Amino acid sequence: MSIERHDTRLDRFVDNYAERTNGMRVSAVRALFAVANRPEIVSLAGGMPNIEDLGLQAIADNVSRLIRDHGAKVMQYGSGQGEPEIRERICEVMALESILAHPDDICVTAGSQQGLDLVTRVFCDPGDVILAESPSYVGALGTFLSYQCEVVHVPSDEHGISPAALRETIARLQADGKRIKFLYTIPNFSNPSGLTQPMQRRREVIDACNDGGVMVVEDNPYGLLTLETLPQPAMRAIDPEVIYLGSFSKIFAPGFRVGWVLAPHGVREKLTLAQESATLCPPVFSQFAIADYLEHYDWQKQIVAFRDMYRGRRDAMLEELADAMPDGVSWTQPKGGFFVWLTMPEGLDSQAMLPRGVNARVAYVPGAAFYADGQGAANMRLSYCFPTAERIREGVRRLAGMIRSELEVHEIFGTDFRHPQGSHVPGPSPDLS
Amino acid sequence: MSIERHDTRLDRFVDNYAERTNGMRVSAVRALFAVANRPEIVSLAGGMPNIEDLGLQAIADNVSRLIRDHGAKVMQYGSGQGEPEIRERICEVMALESILAHPDDICVTAGSQQGLDLVTRVFCDPGDVILAESPSYVGALGTFLSYQCEVVHVPSDEHGISPAALRETIARLQADGKRIKFLYTIPNFSNPSGLTQPMQRRREVIDACNDGGVMVVEDNPYGLLTLETLPQPAMRAIDPEVIYLGSFSKIFAPGFRVGWVLAPHGVREKLTLAQESATLCPPVFSQFAIADYLEHYDWQKQIVAFRDMYRGRRDAMLEELADAMPDGVSWTQPKGGFFVWLTMPEGLDSQAMLPRGVNARVAYVPGAAFYADGQGAANMRLSYCFPTAERIREGVRRLAGMIRSELEVHEIFGTDFRHPQGSHVPGPSPDLS
Repeated sequence: MSIERHDTRLDRFVDNYAERTNGMRVSAVRALFAVANRPEIVSLAGGMPNIEDLGLQAIADNVSRLIRDHGAKVMQYGSGQGEPEIRERICEVMALESILAHPDDICVTAGSQQGLDLVTRVFCDPGDVILAESPSYVGALGTFLSYQCEVVHVPSDEHGISPAALRETIARLQADGKRIKFLYTIPNFSNPSGLTQPMQRRREVIDACNDGGVMVVEDNPYGLLTLETLPQPAMRAIDPEVIYLGSFSKIFAPGFRVGWVLAPHGVREKLTLAQESATLCPPVFSQFAIADYLEHYDWQKQIVAFRDMYRGRRDAMLEELADAMPDGVSWTQPKGGFFVWLTMPEGLDSQAMLPRGVNARVAYVPGAAFYADGQGAANMRLSYCFPTAERIREGVRRLAGMIRSELEVHEIFGTDFRHPQGSHVPGPSPDLS
Repeated sequence: MSIERHDTRLDRFVDNYAERTNGMRVSAVRALFAVANRPEIVSLAGGMPNIEDLGLQAIADNVSRLIRDHGAKVMQYGSGQGEPEIRERICEVMALESILAHPDDICVTAGSQQGLDLVTRVFCDPGDVILAESPSYVGALGTFLSYQCEVVHVPSDEHGISPAALRETIARLQADGKRIKFLYTIPNFSNPSGLTQPMQRRREVIDACNDGGVMVVEDNPYGLLTLETLPQPAMRAIDPEVIYLGSFSKIFAPGFRVGWVLAPHGVREKLTLAQESATLCPPVFSQFAIADYLEHYDWQKQIVAFRDMYRGRRDAMLEELADAMPDGVSWTQPKGGFFVWLTMPEGLDSQAMLPRGVNARVAYVPGAAFYADGQGAANMRLSYCFPTAERIREGVRRLAGMIRSELEVHEIFGTDFRHPQGSHVPGPSPDLS
């Protein structure tokens, strides 16, 4: 037996896991992504921001001074709620989207993903329902499922969630005795659809939720990365009881892992207790480094520079899609953020096609990843955030060629190419963020 | 109704919380701690390491270089498992306690507290039993309770957990049909007892668990801060299926929030999936900063300096306790770590005394915080990590005076001074870590 006891490759703990753990699976998509990281492949899959143009020397000098002059404080344990210095700065950031907030109503998190985790932890028992856009962020779906929640997608149109469908869904689920905990929505440049709710739509969605007694959780990592207009007021600016998730990952840098939740006071208190149980305190040094960046660096000018850079990349993607894609393929026209949502003719399956995509040296995220219920086979998420405009154009051309030959095969043989096992939601992963 | 809807002080969400959230309470102890942070009070309560003596200029220079030369990498998203650079270095750290490990079996966490959270998340359903030392770390108890687990304390002697009591407890609980998920133990300089399991005891504890089919979770934040001898082999060095939690908080600095879990391969895979769901990835910049520190700084010499500093403080506390404490008070003799566990005569209640302690300008953590079952009224945890030796002596004198007058009152009136509501476990908090 000593071989078995010392070979850590055999999982003798397999019967010991919690029920929630049985739902955790390494997705086939992720295995392919490992391959997709090869340099010859154009990845339109990742959601990594391009931070090459940050002023590294200035940031380095500031962080160096911070450690030299305040090291014993900024490298020490901190507050479970997050440091007051950064919570005050976060209010200034949110003011750009018309949010009036008090620093005491903010709970700092280890990235916005942890905000999702803590909100779900505080509110959701197994079997509770969470409403989500259709499609919705893969990382949120993974977290909701890890808390054994049921995700119900609300049909959406080109302006995001349909208020009529939302009211109908709430009424139907409540009539069935379901306990709906909240609506999860990304109103600006949604991940993955790229779509944005206009102001009127935001009000209608909030009203529908308030009438049904359903909380709204607004996730807004991309709001300031608007490419055409000024930022719109957040849903939280319309209704102060909306729970709001923010992040520095896209307007500064993700590696510090600092996000936040703005919530009504009682909820914020619970979130802080949950944060203490989860990590004692969110990354302290990171918080001071970002507060320092916001104080000593022209961060708003940096956001304008990010906008210009992403606008060029988005335009490259949209132009090349228009030039290269065969008839029958359609896609969204994002006005900000990182993503285009592409729809192929019925019968094609983006997940089954992924290996052939990698063969054609292009990667994307199959649409099924963004649904908890098996939809999305004909969709894919394309991101324009990380590769250069030239690489994006090359990637789109490769993708178009691949779709074209799939369509030919499909036309000749009429086969249903869908993945035989159906689709499933992979866990969230930095590659998919 | 508009007043109610806009006043975020009223918690209209009170009926929406998850069942687990109902157990989260702000403890009375924490409210007192806010007061205890006043400079005139000697706090023997906190578990904050003293990092004043780190070479801040050298660390600042290294971090600065790291950002300037590798900013776009070290500030980007990273691996859910943690960066390979730091996982390799972590193996070197663990080798000092005789652990042979592969970097692939390590999952990096946002502090060791998150290691506790993820291990519990992966293994524990509501109602599962976790065995713990008696007394045990308050932050772990809070996390276990937040996952709705039942904590059963195993009686301990001066060498830690009693193997006979452990076997008896396992057999009794299993006969009752309870599902025991793991034993949680801090074998070196335990928080809060300061006690250490000798090698023979480690083997007996592991054997008892293996015979009962119970996993061992070894938490070892203080092992390298040994004050008298060389570090002992970890329990993980005896049995490679022990799940091991490590931390940089006490051998470097806590503000980076980097800890780790070393686990058999299958478990590590689940932990990584759980980590991705919780945060996408642990703090990336922090990991590179620490890997860089371990590469470019004589970190082992720094640990020796920490030992010398803490030894002086421990000696000050033990000497002053011997000089100042009235008869009938006893305490442990830690050979490392941060804590002394003090026992008062029966009838005194450390939690009820805390306001009088603050009045006498000294703070400690009441013993009840370290039990899930109401024990510990006559105990308190005293820490010698953060205040100077002189302040420690002053604090112990104040504490002794306070206990002396409590004993006098007790003798005169014979009253039972125990806290009328009994004791309860506060949530973990950086103040208590």
